[in-house]
Amino acid sequence: MRLIVQKYGGTSVGTPERICNVARRILETQRKGCRVVAVISAMAGVTDQLVKLAKAVSPQPTERELDILLATGEGAASALTAMAVNALGGTAISVTGAQAGILTDHHHTKARIANISPKQIHEMLSEDYIVIVAGFQGQTPEGDMTTLGRGGSDLTAIALAGALNADACQIFTDVDGVFTCDPRVVLDAKKVSEIAYDEMLEMAGSGAKVMQSRAVEFAKKFGVEFEVRSTFTKRRGTITKEETPSMEDVVVRGISLDRHQAKLSIAGVRDEPGMAARIFSNIAAAHIIVDMIVQNASISGTTDVSFTIHEDELENARTILMPVIGQIGAKRLNTIAGVAKLSVVGIGMRSHSGVAARMFECMGKSGINIQLVSTSEIKIAVIIDEKDAERAAQLIHAEFGLARLLASPSATRPLA
Amino acid sequence: MRLIVQKYGGTSVGTPERICNVARRILETQRKGCRVVAVISAMAGVTDQLVKLAKAVSPQPTERELDILLATGEGAASALTAMAVNALGGTAISVTGAQAGILTDHHHTKARIANISPKQIHEMLSEDYIVIVAGFQGQTPEGDMTTLGRGGSDLTAIALAGALNADACQIFTDVDGVFTCDPRVVLDAKKVSEIAYDEMLEMAGSGAKVMQSRAVEFAKKFGVEFEVRSTFTKRRGTITKEETPSMEDVVVRGISLDRHQAKLSIAGVRDEPGMAARIFSNIAAAHIIVDMIVQNASISGTTDVSFTIHEDELENARTILMPVIGQIGAKRLNTIAGVAKLSVVGIGMRSHSGVAARMFECMGKSGINIQLVSTSEIKIAVIIDEKDAERAAQLIHAEFGLARLLASPSATRPLA
Repeated sequence: MRLIVQKYGGTSVGTPERICNVARRILETQRKGCRVVAVISAMAGVTDQLVKLAKAVSPQPTERELDILLATGEGAASALTAMAVNALGGTAISVTGAQAGILTDHHHTKARIANISPKQIHEMLSEDYIVIVAGFQGQTPEGDMTTLGRGGSDLTAIALAGALNADACQIFTDVDGVFTCDPRVVLDAKKVSEIAYDEMLEMAGSGAKVMQSRAVEFAKKFGVEFEVRSTFTKRRGTITKEETPSMEDVVVRGISLDRHQAKLSIAGVRDEPGMAARIFSNIAAAHIIVDMIVQNASISGTTDVSFTIHEDELENARTILMPVIGQIGAKRLNTIAGVAKLSVVGIGMRSHSGVAARMFECMGKSGINIQLVSTSEIKIAVIIDEKDAERAAQLIHAEFGLARLLASPSATRPLA
Repeated sequence: MRLIVQKYGGTSVGTPERICNVARRILETQRKGCRVVAVISAMAGVTDQLVKLAKAVSPQPTERELDILLATGEGAASALTAMAVNALGGTAISVTGAQAGILTDHHHTKARIANISPKQIHEMLSEDYIVIVAGFQGQTPEGDMTTLGRGGSDLTAIALAGALNADACQIFTDVDGVFTCDPRVVLDAKKVSEIAYDEMLEMAGSGAKVMQSRAVEFAKKFGVEFEVRSTFTKRRGTITKEETPSMEDVVVRGISLDRHQAKLSIAGVRDEPGMAARIFSNIAAAHIIVDMIVQNASISGTTDVSFTIHEDELENARTILMPVIGQIGAKRLNTIAGVAKLSVVGIGMRSHSGVAARMFECMGKSGINIQLVSTSEIKIAVIIDEKDAERAAQLIHAEFGLARLLASPSATRPLA
């Protein structure tokens, strides 16, 4: 019998009605002759409420206790889902992350999975139970509750699918899958039917928030194929898998946009070891997340260092950097808010040359100025003025013929 | 070092501010040179919300899943309390019922404690932790979460106090202790400083809802002394303990009132085996809770059977009983709503004769009609018209000189 691991996100179980809907989907899957393990997130909003309570009793909540507190959200949602399945005539049983055998390290609030031994799940499945697993949770070897950090339920599902050697892993969410671009920006954006792990990772890291990178990395590491699809429709979603030779035929898999970015450039930095560390250690200490970092080639002993952050952090970063500029003897700090990052992703870039040139030419012809460029093997990212962002996405989407890709009925909500 | 087990009820941890108040009390106790284990209930209202959610997804929620769901309430509150203690400079750690070593049978939603092995708590205490225990929870030998039924957190506290051989067990609640009568009814009702287990049991079973009977029974069985006191004041509460010879000097410990009762009398029941069973099995099957049952002595082969229920159940009970009356060949069913049960409790009754006579005389002189009488060794309960209830309580309170008992500053909220 086929074994399917499903994961339902917070929006999918956000109300009692939606929990009943999820229960019906689980039972439909079973009736098709499958055994089902369903991983459940906390009901939408619950985690935020719990965090608010924690902050109301403590300015800096103990992380061990925060894990116990937050894990109650998934515990409650999984028990409710099991009840709903049972109310519809099924036979479901809910388990905690610990009972599911998810052993982690001791890093509370962002624990890493050390080992999975889903003995209890195997037993329950062999007794024909539908097993409902509280997502996001694990347990230390000493029996303390841990949580897996943001997007942890995706990780639970993928890790369990791997450990159980499941035949399929389905991530149910509130979008139809991964799109060639945000359909609100590019009207003829299409759902992608297949995507390689590396592409998914680059998309996820570039504003297309389908899944957290950690879950995708885990899937890649253990070769777990998974499908991202909507809880609210019956449509097929996007399958993320090992790359196949035919995937390289598509030069660009998708385009993603990150808006509300700010660019900071430090000019005249001495080309000496330790300069970058002086700059970025101060930024990191303030928990400001740095995205792109570009350092130009050194000319006459000095270099320019540019990087991007969310524009909300700009004032904070400027305050931190002003004294550093003086200390390291750099010339000046230029900052600009209101920029966007546009990323073009595709493993086909490896075998197709000239992708960057074609992209830059397309933008240049339309008078869109490129302020910063950064590339990986399968991604080209540029910083442009935010007012140009949508037009650039539309132009590049058309240039690489993305709309002609796999047809899919219209999207309910956009993604990439 | 003294070891104190404290229990804080749902009202005591009902808001973040109140949780911080509880944290301060816990730390004060520690600063007096005590080790502290604090048992925490779910925040007021949370359990009701969870039950509502359960009913929204299932007409008859699976009891195993209901336990997992409900236990999240205590899990969250205990984690929040631990955070609050830590935020105030203490060192607290929260544990589940399972980690506290509370092993139960398999009766989900009303599990009985089978064994307690608080090894982890001992270890944590020896490392100078304040241990915060999620109340109401236990675990089966197979590792499934169970809950201990209504008032289960009291039971957790008393059971742990026994197992840890604690020097004191304090039940913090929203009342100042046990009173000689409800101070809203009898203005000069006084807080009782000491009460025997049996008296507490009779008071609890008679409308004075300080603690669930199960917790008191457990305390009696294992000889655990406990104090019921207010979270919101510094006043001493009421200590429940083994009876001492001096306790018998007080004839009446307290008076309690149960209003909104209904009395049902079945006249002309044949004095044969099985008659009572025919009547009450039908009532029990409908989950109607029967309080007093009185059967008069048989005269000429037939007898009258009277009993009391909550008046909200009267219509339901009447519908059930009408056909039964015919089947068993009884004469008729008389029912009356709007009656009250007045109970007079005291272990001193055992050694003082004439308590009932004195009570009846006092009521008779004031024209209060007694409709039903039932007695135990330490309790006399009467059913009277609800309109007479307060006056009767005041008269009897004065008759037995209860106001002259132990002085205590005025009560914030009444109890018995």
